[in-house]
Amino acid sequence: MKAGFLAEPSALYEPIDYTLTQSGKRLRPLLALMSCDLFGGDPDLAMYPAMGLEIFHNFTLLHDDIMDRAPVRRGRATVHRKWNVNTAILSGDTMFVIAYEYITKTESSKLSPVLELFNTTAREVCEGQQYDMNFESEKEVSIPDYLKMIRLKTAVLLACSLKLGAILAGAEKEAIDQIYDFGENLGLAFQLQDDYLDAFGDFKKFGKEIGNDILTNKKTFLYLKAFELAREDTLIKLTRCFSDQELPPSEKIGKITEIYRELKIDEITREEILLHFGKGLGFLDAIKVENGRKAGLKALALEMIGREK
Amino acid sequence: MKAGFLAEPSALYEPIDYTLTQSGKRLRPLLALMSCDLFGGDPDLAMYPAMGLEIFHNFTLLHDDIMDRAPVRRGRATVHRKWNVNTAILSGDTMFVIAYEYITKTESSKLSPVLELFNTTAREVCEGQQYDMNFESEKEVSIPDYLKMIRLKTAVLLACSLKLGAILAGAEKEAIDQIYDFGENLGLAFQLQDDYLDAFGDFKKFGKEIGNDILTNKKTFLYLKAFELAREDTLIKLTRCFSDQELPPSEKIGKITEIYRELKIDEITREEILLHFGKGLGFLDAIKVENGRKAGLKALALEMIGREK
Repeated sequence: MKAGFLAEPSALYEPIDYTLTQSGKRLRPLLALMSCDLFGGDPDLAMYPAMGLEIFHNFTLLHDDIMDRAPVRRGRATVHRKWNVNTAILSGDTMFVIAYEYITKTESSKLSPVLELFNTTAREVCEGQQYDMNFESEKEVSIPDYLKMIRLKTAVLLACSLKLGAILAGAEKEAIDQIYDFGENLGLAFQLQDDYLDAFGDFKKFGKEIGNDILTNKKTFLYLKAFELAREDTLIKLTRCFSDQELPPSEKIGKITEIYRELKIDEITREEILLHFGKGLGFLDAIKVENGRKAGLKALALEMIGREK
Repeated sequence: MKAGFLAEPSALYEPIDYTLTQSGKRLRPLLALMSCDLFGGDPDLAMYPAMGLEIFHNFTLLHDDIMDRAPVRRGRATVHRKWNVNTAILSGDTMFVIAYEYITKTESSKLSPVLELFNTTAREVCEGQQYDMNFESEKEVSIPDYLKMIRLKTAVLLACSLKLGAILAGAEKEAIDQIYDFGENLGLAFQLQDDYLDAFGDFKKFGKEIGNDILTNKKTFLYLKAFELAREDTLIKLTRCFSDQELPPSEKIGKITEIYRELKIDEITREEILLHFGKGLGFLDAIKVENGRKAGLKALALEMIGREK
C-alpha cells in the first residue's frame, strides 16, 4: 500500500505509516475485489472499503501484538517495541478510525449493509482475540472451542471480505451467504494451515520462524489434538516437554515435532484442513455463476492452503 | 445508561458493562437530543447515534486511563487496574465497535454525513490525546498549542454532538456550522473550567480530588499561564514547587495555588473561560431559530461552566 498516512502529530501518524507500508499479502482486499468481479460488479466500487478491511486487519495485528508482547511482525520491530505501548494503543485506535473512513466511502445505497457487516465482523474479531487470550490460562480447551476461536479471530474477516465484494456487486442474498460460507471455511483451513506450518513448515517458504507456537506452549490445533490422543508414556513425554523450561529451544521443537509425528498429528491436521477447505469449495461451487468465472478465486484459495492445484 | 452489554466472552463484556453503567452526566447525548429538538427534529431520531457518541466518549476515557496510568475514574477503579491492560485495550476496542453500531442505526438518508462527522471527530480526539501526551515531555508548550490540544481532545466531540442533532433534524448548512461553532467554543470554556476547578474548585461541588493536575505537574492553562507571567522570585518559587519531589501533596497544592492567586491566574482563567463562552453564545444567538427555543441549551451551557444564570 502506498505511503500517505503521514500527518500531524507525527508521533501518532509515523507508526501508522510504518505499519501500513509494511509488506503483506493484502489478502483481504484481494478477496473483496475478486468477489466483486465474480458477481459482475465493478471492482473499483469495492476499492475503498476493501482498503478499509486491510487497514482494520493491520489495526488488529497492532493491538494483538501489544497484548501478546510480540517483538517482531513481518521481520520488523512491532510498534509497541519500536515506540512504546501508549503509542501503539493510540495509533491503533486511529487506524481503526481510518478503516471506518475507508468503509464510509462505500456508495451510499450500499453503505448500511456494508457497515452492518463490518461492525459485526469487527466485534467478532475482538471476541476471537479474547477467547485466544482466555485459552492461555484455561486448562481444558476442546477442539470445538478452538475452532470457534479461530473462526472469530481469523475466518470471519476473510468471509467478510468476500461478502463485501458480493454486496457491492449487487449479488443475490443466497449467493452472498454462499460466498460468506466459502470464506469462513477457507479461513478455518487457512488458520489450521498456519498451525500446521509452525511445526511442519519449511522456513524458506513459510517466511517466519518455525516452532514459535511450540516454544510458547500455544494451544493450537496440533497441541490440543496431541493431548487428546496421547496416552501413557507419550502423554508423560508430551507434558514434560511442554513444561520443561530448561530444554533448549531447538531441542524442544525437535522433540515435540517428533511426538506430533508419532501421533500422526501432521496427517490429522492435513485432513482437518482439507475437510474445511472441501466444505468451503462446496459453497463456492454451489454459487449460481458460470464456473469458469470462479477459477481465480479457486486458485487463490488453493494457494492459501499451500497447494498448487 | 441501562445495563445490557453482557455477552460472551464475559472477560470481554464485563468491563464494558462496568464502564457503561457508571454514573456520568451523559452530556454528549443530551446535547445531541437538545440540538435535534432546537431545529424541530424528532429527538427519537437522534437517540441511537447519540448513544453512540456516549459510548465512544467512554471508550476514549478507558484507553486514555491506560495511557495516563489513572487508577480511578468516577470514584471506581479503572478497567486496567480492576482487570488488566490487555483487557482494557480489547474491551475498549470492542466499545469502539459498539459505538459504530449505534451510529450505524442512523436513518439511511443521513447515515453518510453522520458517519463523516463522527469519523472526523474520532480521529481528532485521538490527535488531541497524542498532543496531550506529547506535552508531558515538551519543554515549551504555548497557550495556542494548549488551546489546540483541548479543542481536539474535548471540544470537537461536544461540537459534534450538537452538529449530529442538527443534521438529523435537517437543519440548514449555515445553522449546522453555527451550532458546531457554538459547541466548539463551549467545549473550550468547559475544559478551561475543568482546569480552573482543579486549583480553585470546591471538592463537594467538583466531585473529584482538588489539585490533581498540580500534583502531576500537568501543563494546564493555569500552569502555562503562570510560567508565562511569573518573573524573578516568583518564577524561581514556581519552578521549585513543581520540581520538589519531597513536598507533601497538600503543601504543594497550597503553595502553587497561592502563587496562582498572586499572579491572578484565577481571574485570568475566568476571563479566558468567559471569552470562549461568550464567543460560543454569539454563534448560538445568530442561529435563525426563535430565541425562546434556545433557552434550554443556554441554561445547560451556563451550568457547564459553573454559572447559575
